[in-house]
Amino acid sequence: MEEWGGKSYFKLEFVSNPKTLVKNWKEKGGKVVHLTMYGLNLTEKVSELAQINVPLLVIVGSEKVEGWYYYNADYNIAVSNQPHSEVSALAIFLDRIYKGEELNISFSDARLLIIPKERGKEVVRRE
Amino acid sequence: MEEWGGKSYFKLEFVSNPKTLVKNWKEKGGKVVHLTMYGLNLTEKVSELAQINVPLLVIVGSEKVEGWYYYNADYNIAVSNQPHSEVSALAIFLDRIYKGEELNISFSDARLLIIPKERGKEVVRRE
Repeated sequence: MEEWGGKSYFKLEFVSNPKTLVKNWKEKGGKVVHLTMYGLNLTEKVSELAQINVPLLVIVGSEKVEGWYYYNADYNIAVSNQPHSEVSALAIFLDRIYKGEELNISFSDARLLIIPKERGKEVVRRE
Repeated sequence: MEEWGGKSYFKLEFVSNPKTLVKNWKEKGGKVVHLTMYGLNLTEKVSELAQINVPLLVIVGSEKVEGWYYYNADYNIAVSNQPHSEVSALAIFLDRIYKGEELNISFSDARLLIIPKERGKEVVRRE
């Protein structure tokens, strides 16, 4: 984030008790989406999800996600009912929610800026 | 693939000389897309790419991709001009090319089938 910006967009935090995070999120009126290949297909639910106008917590896990999350999430959503990369599931989910607009984001605090090119690399440094 | 199917869709292979693969691909009339954050934004090129009707080779690499690939690819395409996961870039690229239809694929040779559910997991085994 120092180089590529986004400090006002992103905040990274480790939490020791993720269940408490989920509970507090819901108590404050937020919604919780758990991405899992066992859930309902994203295609069917995307218009409903895109209309959520409260803060959204998205949970992605690996193979060992406890049943608790399935039962406490407001939505269990499958980015296809096939095994897949969790990182990619999050990317596709956000892409649908943001309707592709995330590809055009540029961060005002970025020090490094890429100039899109047909060939090669061009990076500008702003001081 | 034994369990989840897709043997007729996917073939995994290690190649010792990826440059030869690229050269042969182009000689046989195929096109080559290299996904890199330094390229032209996917949003601008997606309709052109979706119209390619010859076999498409997609290259994703990590930080150390040689300049050779930038100059021998037919297209250098950025899934956003920001640092990002290569796996996610491939997912977003394929999602756009397939217009989301990949989320509905089911493989006829799959032994395990997920029944989409609002809560919990349901998997059917076919023998």
